[in-house]
Amino acid sequence: MRKIYFLFVFTAVSFLSFAQIEDSLAIRRIADEILINSKAYENLHYLTKQIGGRLAGSPGMVKAEQWGLKVMKGSGADKTWLQECLVPHWVRGGKDEAKAVSIRKGSAVPKPLNTPLDVIALGNSIGSGAKWIKADVLYVNSFDELEAKKDEVKGKIVFYNHKFNPTYVSTFLAYRDAVQYRGQGPSRAAKYGAVAVIIRSMSHSADNYPHSGATRYDSLYAKIPAIAIGLRDADWLDHNLQAGIVTVQLKTNGHFLPDTTGHNVIGEIKGTEFPDEIITIGGHLDSWDNCEGAHDDGAGSVQTMEVLRAFKAIGYKPKRTIRFVLFANEENGLRGGNKYADEAKEKNEKHIFAIESDAGGFTPRSLGFTVSDEQFKKVMAWKELIAPYGCSEFTRGGGGADIGPLNKSLSTPMGSLNPDSQRYFDIHHARNDVFEAVNKRELELGAVNIAALIYLVDKYGL
Amino acid sequence: MRKIYFLFVFTAVSFLSFAQIEDSLAIRRIADEILINSKAYENLHYLTKQIGGRLAGSPGMVKAEQWGLKVMKGSGADKTWLQECLVPHWVRGGKDEAKAVSIRKGSAVPKPLNTPLDVIALGNSIGSGAKWIKADVLYVNSFDELEAKKDEVKGKIVFYNHKFNPTYVSTFLAYRDAVQYRGQGPSRAAKYGAVAVIIRSMSHSADNYPHSGATRYDSLYAKIPAIAIGLRDADWLDHNLQAGIVTVQLKTNGHFLPDTTGHNVIGEIKGTEFPDEIITIGGHLDSWDNCEGAHDDGAGSVQTMEVLRAFKAIGYKPKRTIRFVLFANEENGLRGGNKYADEAKEKNEKHIFAIESDAGGFTPRSLGFTVSDEQFKKVMAWKELIAPYGCSEFTRGGGGADIGPLNKSLSTPMGSLNPDSQRYFDIHHARNDVFEAVNKRELELGAVNIAALIYLVDKYGL
Repeated sequence: MRKIYFLFVFTAVSFLSFAQIEDSLAIRRIADEILINSKAYENLHYLTKQIGGRLAGSPGMVKAEQWGLKVMKGSGADKTWLQECLVPHWVRGGKDEAKAVSIRKGSAVPKPLNTPLDVIALGNSIGSGAKWIKADVLYVNSFDELEAKKDEVKGKIVFYNHKFNPTYVSTFLAYRDAVQYRGQGPSRAAKYGAVAVIIRSMSHSADNYPHSGATRYDSLYAKIPAIAIGLRDADWLDHNLQAGIVTVQLKTNGHFLPDTTGHNVIGEIKGTEFPDEIITIGGHLDSWDNCEGAHDDGAGSVQTMEVLRAFKAIGYKPKRTIRFVLFANEENGLRGGNKYADEAKEKNEKHIFAIESDAGGFTPRSLGFTVSDEQFKKVMAWKELIAPYGCSEFTRGGGGADIGPLNKSLSTPMGSLNPDSQRYFDIHHARNDVFEAVNKRELELGAVNIAALIYLVDKYGL
Repeated sequence: MRKIYFLFVFTAVSFLSFAQIEDSLAIRRIADEILINSKAYENLHYLTKQIGGRLAGSPGMVKAEQWGLKVMKGSGADKTWLQECLVPHWVRGGKDEAKAVSIRKGSAVPKPLNTPLDVIALGNSIGSGAKWIKADVLYVNSFDELEAKKDEVKGKIVFYNHKFNPTYVSTFLAYRDAVQYRGQGPSRAAKYGAVAVIIRSMSHSADNYPHSGATRYDSLYAKIPAIAIGLRDADWLDHNLQAGIVTVQLKTNGHFLPDTTGHNVIGEIKGTEFPDEIITIGGHLDSWDNCEGAHDDGAGSVQTMEVLRAFKAIGYKPKRTIRFVLFANEENGLRGGNKYADEAKEKNEKHIFAIESDAGGFTPRSLGFTVSDEQFKKVMAWKELIAPYGCSEFTRGGGGADIGPLNKSLSTPMGSLNPDSQRYFDIHHARNDVFEAVNKRELELGAVNIAALIYLVDKYGL
């Protein structure tokens, strides 16, 4: 380890105006409160280890909502409430299983295999019924390749092996390219008579954990089972498909129960000068059922409540009303985000800004903004105040799934906390998205950066 | 996970000049080579899992040198060699042990305890001899407190419980404040008659792994045993010392064997236009004995060789000579770095720049430079070219322990790769500094940022 030391950041401070120095000190005070006294990590520990997975409609959802309300109160909110919404209730229904049963080269007799594959059914997907589905696998790398092979699809299990592009520095760009196979893959294969699909997990990871996530059936075509496969197994399958025809059998059990009641968990600090102007900070409380949902989005949930706790702990009295929201059902329905926007519209609320943390509890790197040119100019003037805490880049574009409806229906300017993205898709929707994958300080610094931005939005408006 | 996408970085490219576009494309090519074909992760796997700990003088050191030379050759160096140097040969000599044996409140009879403490002897420290050292513990938080309590020190075990400051955003600043207790603590306590010292591990981590690292005895005072203690045990000891007098016994076995032969492992690509102008890229090959040395500094070592591999793989022919160096004995002697500088001086070599990666294989964030004002201005003009790969900040100050001597004796401008620092002191010098703590892409992006900078230094000089 190097023995030569140097100062990284604070040199910029010397060029600040008086107001900026005041802001710099106020932000330092908030940051110190969080970095010294944060409850984010212990809250995350409880959420992940005592509650765990919490998909919409599950017992975990109910427990998490009650816990969230309690923590929100304990963090000192002036007012807390549950905002009711109907949520879908998809259940996995049992263990998802698949194995390669044989490989056939040319006209030779199939050679038996008995190779179990590490798979997980996609969220919202249907089960295979009581029987296993057994069929030959058709390899495709893209929808173009699917179209080219459309005459071969009937009766097959289509294997989408689209790989994450390693040359993108932001892993979200690789995800953007890959996620369409999870979303549209089943129905596009069903269109040509496929009996099931296998999707290569959307990940750069070196392990074999399969990554779940929602799929969306097109009502025009048959609903067919859909599973994600771990990367090592995907490579194994790819390799064997180059040598012959592989037959796979699989069994899934997913199905929908009737919609049920879920809730957004909301805490509020009332504004002293402009109580009707609302600023929203949020993450989503639900997670997939196959993991602890530590990064996705336990992190955003506890950061949201940490900002509330820190503001109250230092006696900060915002000019504007600040809402802290744990949204329901982001993963497979977005009913929480829609409900929040719908009610805001009905009540004719004035939402001046919303920010979401839903890209993991990793070390903060940038803030993204979906705002007007003028607003972005205003925001950019705050950059030097926030940069020392990690978000040294401010970019156009940003928001979050749960605050998207607010932006859409009320044109609310929105932003996002963008942590470092390298590790995110190692754990995203997979069973290794656990508490242990979260670093305490990285989590806390995320809260610091959100708090700093909200302090400035509250003070100066947008 | 958010469903709204946005581009993070490349917008700056549109404002680049023709030369900058050419450079941007060249850097993109190097980056793609590394991100697609890197051997850094598998090399790190071999170094950590097949060789493991490799303290100067140990059998691991010898194996690592041979392996490094082989990889350097395999990466396509025009020339490779071992640069011999004498290295110290400190050995741990056995298991370091400590336990709290009793606690005494006021004049009461001591209450027996039998609490084992998770400890590790500091590097270069002496052993306690065949017998256990048993003494009451004297708590101090700082050297000021030691001075204030100097009359109580005699016959005691001094416990330095200086905590990492959580309010620094860069953890290296917390380390800078804390590391003096490891370096000077034993001798400053020995001055007043202490029989041993216990140092709180230099870490923010939530676990209990003790963190080693070198100490330096002052020849004026008796050499006394010195151990580091895990943070949970440190907090436990702190807590119990507030309630009474705790007696601890400890046993260590460290000692020096005669100096032995070690080597810097060097690979070189000869410059085509200015072969006499040398650019050095390096990390250190040695590590502490209690860990795999994955981040410290296996990461810097494999990144160094990855830059070499990538340059050769794309057929890059540098104008200047580029040296890739795995330095010997950074951890407890710096003999490799000194040797490299001494020979450079003897041979009157012209070293125009040196960069070291020795702050972990985490996601790259900034490049630091110890250069003249004019050179820094030149370097700053390259920032937009490198920022898209992670190092979006260029700061004054930077270098590395191993290249420090080059800077000192030849005034060679130097720089450092500064990865995100949040996780570094969770694993630094502790048994959890293992391969599994390194993320493949973060490691590779480190190599990309170094390669990009070196491409520019090579092309434009400094």
